[in-house]
Amino acid sequence: MAAPLVTLSDYEVQAREKLEPGSWAYLSGGAADEFTLNANAQAWQRLEIWPRVLQPLCGGHTRVKLAGRDLAHPILLAPVAHQRLAHAEGEVASALAAAAQGAGYILSTQSSVPLEMVAQAMLGDQERGPMWFQLYWQHDRAFNLELAERARAAGYEALVLTADAPVSGARDRERRAEFKLPPGIESVHLQGVPPPTTHEAATYCGGIPAHALCWEDIAWLQARTPLPIWLKGVLHPQDALRAREMGLAGLIVSNHGGRTLDTAPASARALARIADAVDGQLPLIVDGGIRRGTDILKAMALGANAVLIGRPLMHGLAVAGALGVARVIRILRDELEMAMALSGCRTLADATRELLDTPTGL
Amino acid sequence: MAAPLVTLSDYEVQAREKLEPGSWAYLSGGAADEFTLNANAQAWQRLEIWPRVLQPLCGGHTRVKLAGRDLAHPILLAPVAHQRLAHAEGEVASALAAAAQGAGYILSTQSSVPLEMVAQAMLGDQERGPMWFQLYWQHDRAFNLELAERARAAGYEALVLTADAPVSGARDRERRAEFKLPPGIESVHLQGVPPPTTHEAATYCGGIPAHALCWEDIAWLQARTPLPIWLKGVLHPQDALRAREMGLAGLIVSNHGGRTLDTAPASARALARIADAVDGQLPLIVDGGIRRGTDILKAMALGANAVLIGRPLMHGLAVAGALGVARVIRILRDELEMAMALSGCRTLADATRELLDTPTGL
Amino acid sequence: MAAPLVTLSDYEVQAREKLEPGSWAYLSGGAADEFTLNANAQAWQRLEIWPRVLQPLCGGHTRVKLAGRDLAHPILLAPVAHQRLAHAEGEVASALAAAAQGAGYILSTQSSVPLEMVAQAMLGDQERGPMWFQLYWQHDRAFNLELAERARAAGYEALVLTADAPVSGARDRERRAEFKLPPGIESVHLQGVPPPTTHEAATYCGGIPAHALCWEDIAWLQARTPLPIWLKGVLHPQDALRAREMGLAGLIVSNHGGRTLDTAPASARALARIADAVDGQLPLIVDGGIRRGTDILKAMALGANAVLIGRPLMHGLAVAGALGVARVIRILRDELEMAMALSGCRTLADATRELLDTPTGL
Amino acid sequence: MAAPLVTLSDYEVQAREKLEPGSWAYLSGGAADEFTLNANAQAWQRLEIWPRVLQPLCGGHTRVKLAGRDLAHPILLAPVAHQRLAHAEGEVASALAAAAQGAGYILSTQSSVPLEMVAQAMLGDQERGPMWFQLYWQHDRAFNLELAERARAAGYEALVLTADAPVSGARDRERRAEFKLPPGIESVHLQGVPPPTTHEAATYCGGIPAHALCWEDIAWLQARTPLPIWLKGVLHPQDALRAREMGLAGLIVSNHGGRTLDTAPASARALARIADAVDGQLPLIVDGGIRRGTDILKAMALGANAVLIGRPLMHGLAVAGALGVARVIRILRDELEMAMALSGCRTLADATRELLDTPTGL
Repeated sequence: MAAPLVTLSDYEVQAREKLEPGSWAYLSGGAADEFTLNANAQAWQRLEIWPRVLQPLCGGHTRVKLAGRDLAHPILLAPVAHQRLAHAEGEVASALAAAAQGAGYILSTQSSVPLEMVAQAMLGDQERGPMWFQLYWQHDRAFNLELAERARAAGYEALVLTADAPVSGARDRERRAEFKLPPGIESVHLQGVPPPTTHEAATYCGGIPAHALCWEDIAWLQARTPLPIWLKGVLHPQDALRAREMGLAGLIVSNHGGRTLDTAPASARALARIADAVDGQLPLIVDGGIRRGTDILKAMALGANAVLIGRPLMHGLAVAGALGVARVIRILRDELEMAMALSGCRTLADATRELLDTPTGL
Repeated sequence: MAAPLVTLSDYEVQAREKLEPGSWAYLSGGAADEFTLNANAQAWQRLEIWPRVLQPLCGGHTRVKLAGRDLAHPILLAPVAHQRLAHAEGEVASALAAAAQGAGYILSTQSSVPLEMVAQAMLGDQERGPMWFQLYWQHDRAFNLELAERARAAGYEALVLTADAPVSGARDRERRAEFKLPPGIESVHLQGVPPPTTHEAATYCGGIPAHALCWEDIAWLQARTPLPIWLKGVLHPQDALRAREMGLAGLIVSNHGGRTLDTAPASARALARIADAVDGQLPLIVDGGIRRGTDILKAMALGANAVLIGRPLMHGLAVAGALGVARVIRILRDELEMAMALSGCRTLADATRELLDTPTGL
Repeated sequence: MAAPLVTLSDYEVQAREKLEPGSWAYLSGGAADEFTLNANAQAWQRLEIWPRVLQPLCGGHTRVKLAGRDLAHPILLAPVAHQRLAHAEGEVASALAAAAQGAGYILSTQSSVPLEMVAQAMLGDQERGPMWFQLYWQHDRAFNLELAERARAAGYEALVLTADAPVSGARDRERRAEFKLPPGIESVHLQGVPPPTTHEAATYCGGIPAHALCWEDIAWLQARTPLPIWLKGVLHPQDALRAREMGLAGLIVSNHGGRTLDTAPASARALARIADAVDGQLPLIVDGGIRRGTDILKAMALGANAVLIGRPLMHGLAVAGALGVARVIRILRDELEMAMALSGCRTLADATRELLDTPTGL
Repeated sequence: MAAPLVTLSDYEVQAREKLEPGSWAYLSGGAADEFTLNANAQAWQRLEIWPRVLQPLCGGHTRVKLAGRDLAHPILLAPVAHQRLAHAEGEVASALAAAAQGAGYILSTQSSVPLEMVAQAMLGDQERGPMWFQLYWQHDRAFNLELAERARAAGYEALVLTADAPVSGARDRERRAEFKLPPGIESVHLQGVPPPTTHEAATYCGGIPAHALCWEDIAWLQARTPLPIWLKGVLHPQDALRAREMGLAGLIVSNHGGRTLDTAPASARALARIADAVDGQLPLIVDGGIRRGTDILKAMALGANAVLIGRPLMHGLAVAGALGVARVIRILRDELEMAMALSGCRTLADATRELLDTPTGL
């Protein structure tokens, strides 16, 4: 008999048993020695919550505003690639779960299901959260615009440009496992397109890439798409300020789940600095290491407007398809409610820096 | 042959062998990932004592004043629920032990023995310490007052209102063990009353609670009971100041033994800040992680007037009933005397902040 | 075939194999949870040496002045009790080794061999270091004076008064092992005298001791003995200043090898503060956790004039009697020479605070 | 089937399987308790990189200038002794690999192959990096000059004087393994010369050495050789300033791979301070613990002009001879390119202190 699935870590344990070792290495591994991967979760854990007691909690809720919408809670699903690795229904299942739970959804360029199918699964739900499309910039500018337009036509409401992967990271665990996408799973939107990062034939990395996404590309795209553009993968406050100046819709503070540059700072650390820099003038979503409701409460207290979950959605998907993803979202939301009640926050607006204490140097 | 029972940790080891796994998970587990549970003990351990030597120790003792009484030592038993889980005599046994050892006693609302029976066990002892009743606030205000009056009538000398559990914490270890109270053990004072925290049917947490204890409820109760009111579960200095303004009898600085909000600060850390804030104008008891006489000495040096022990009383109870609890109290007291002698404190008034050094950031 | 005995830790490993478990628990254990025991060694290890290169080393040596004498090196043997637990020749063997290696020697009141026999073993050696007698103060003042006089008559050149053991510590490891001195080993100087610390019959600790050594006792003894008096077991700078005012010969900064008050600071930490306080006006010996030549160099850089080794002498004794102790001293001295050469110190006068760096908070 | 060789640590694992235990102990061990050995790698790991995104990377490269030459990348091979322990071709193989990969090469005085043979292997390659000769100073001044002249005649372009080994360190792991050079491997340049460090007969260390290399010896050599002189083994900023005043060619900041003075600071820590002190007026190479491309990027950001790798070259050599060394260099260079691209550094001139953040106290 399986152990009860009480927390996200229970889903992780069971997902590991269900997945092929190569897929597990791909999904769970990080770059190099995985310092950043581990730092992401630890940074949330080390932040202390100094709770207030006996506050009036009547009418309390987890609602937030994001991109002009009212959301039931601040949880969005991250644009994880190749979701059919975890379950035959792939991105369709996770989109159904997101819609049912009122979570936002970001579809990866590297989806294993066409973006229109995913949109269909989600658009019918009145309670759904935002639905966005993540874009890995390709060398052919026109192709990017076509893909953005296709996403818009299908109902996606924003574009998410990934900034932190001009080359792939050294994902050594994955390379040691000699992971390859199994037959039948592919990046359906990139058929016939060279992969988004440079792997030249003779060498491992093959030189600094000449055509990676730049600020100018973003301006070019801004001028050509009506969709708001979010930038994902920013850690440095100076880059956040530039994004604000360019009029981007918002930032996703992220280190790509520890999968690109190892020893980059934990996303919680970067969030704190970026929130200080942008001073409330740019919406911020944070990504990386969120595994508990208390983590979400801390993210909001540091200045985030919402959070992404990546690997946990894949764990839920592997364990029980759409139902598993829905449970993962629900557990987090329930834990968030508990954390709010136990710390005296009636709404998430009550979660400010004063709730936290950072003696461990975050 | 059993190993000798020399320290509280020896009792813990033997208690684990005696208890059912589910009861052990319930008793020893904390909320979520148990960071706060572990931080409680570690915070005491990391504080350094800088001893003075060659001080006159003649006439030294461990006596303290608390709530207008002279106590032989500053140890009180915490209001642990369901003590019959550990021993058939439950709260009666622990009360007998407390009385015999001159320790204070706080009975839980969730006692498995009627409060009158417990009072009878204790009141006959001339050397007994204070006897108080802990109140988990129920939605029906009148019920609370009736219960308080019943406690007063039975001889309880103060009420302890628990402030840090408007909802239950995510006690995942307990949930994974699928713990349930065994037949014959129940909260005898809450027969027919809904449990003090909200667990709605369809969901895990079920929304922010609308009727949790608030500051206004306390003022309401103050106006209706002659008993002094202590507030348990406060960590934030601002809440401590409000309690002082309201004229409460004192505070129990506590994070509920790490059982409610995980990543809340260790109680030693909160004690230090609260003692600074209230500046001697409010009696302070500290709860959480006290396992050594040196821990008690440090608590007094930080500004506590007394300490609670929770899990250790259950360990003593499980190992040897009343005798086990008495031995646990005695070990702590003996260790406290040793710590005082070895650090040059003739009385606990000599334990001030200057005794400590906090390089590790407490 | 035994592994080569290259370092002090190799002797420790082999000593453990040779000794009875009870003796090992007595010898190697510390008070309570052994935080201070472990902190002693770690504090030395964590100090960094910032070496200077290319310094002239011609004529370099390890000599120091102590108590008006020139010593070949700054190593003294600590007053460890009951040395016949480790080897049949006990203190006679360790004294022979000390004399042969030019190390100082401090005999414990709790010696298992009469002080005259130990003196005879040592006094014949022209190269010997200082020979002192450690005094555990007894309730009968006259007895102490008689013992001091007996030591003086036998050739001991100073008294070492132990200040940090008004009661025994909670040596839980030893108590769990139910250690007792084996037949034939006893404190030969205390025959018929009650033990130096208070263990009353009915209880474990039995109350704060009324007759422990005080500053007044020291003044009383000073007025009656011609021997210089060292004070052992001081950690607090204020106590160091008082010792200086009283005209004591010097201090042994020590926490009793972590055997009395657990969570007292590492002796390296206390040394740094005491050296700052006394400002070169009082000779300082440090005791606790010295296991490497680099540790000695750091102690000198912090302000010590010499160091004690305790457990390592017992390890050498257990492994190979006098020869083992001699090797232990020699290894330390050789390591000290290496450390000096590698850090650019021609003599120990070159070891100043500038050699160190304390980013880890010592 | 062997696991794939993806990172330097994979080479380390396989090298351990190939080498005799004694050789492994000699090669991988450090001094004493190996604190410095471990600190070297950890110091690089703990530095955080705060990446910039969306920077123009067109034309990016890893080139650096060093000693008046343009190098393809900043990696040099450290002067590791006795390379035939790892592979029959020894230093010839590593020199071939260095030349093929454009890495610099420093030959040890304790080479197991004559310096002329090594030079022949390297000089034919047009893309080779610098080729230098490391000199362990011998007591006979004239011998040193002869050896320097012989190196110059063979084509070596600089001398590297080792400053941090006036005596050998306490390499306890090696001594416990009772390592001796196997028959047929010897220091071919030191035939008939006493070993460079003092091991006198009767004792382990044998006193402070009288004839170790001093600043005056360096001035003497400077006046007699046309070769530029680098100083290796400097950690203290004051020594760095003196080297600058003397007009030395540059410094190799190093603690001898943790093999001489244990608890000396990590080389990354020393680099940061020395770079501050010399303020760009002296070329700096850093040595110790470099295992990742991110480590190299951090070294450059702290102020290094190039880096050495020591043990990794031996791992490559043991696993696959020249090819293994070439792969090790290539992996590091590829990782460096990735780290640059992922942190927004088009060239290494973009790697400045602003790239780093040192909350952990480096």
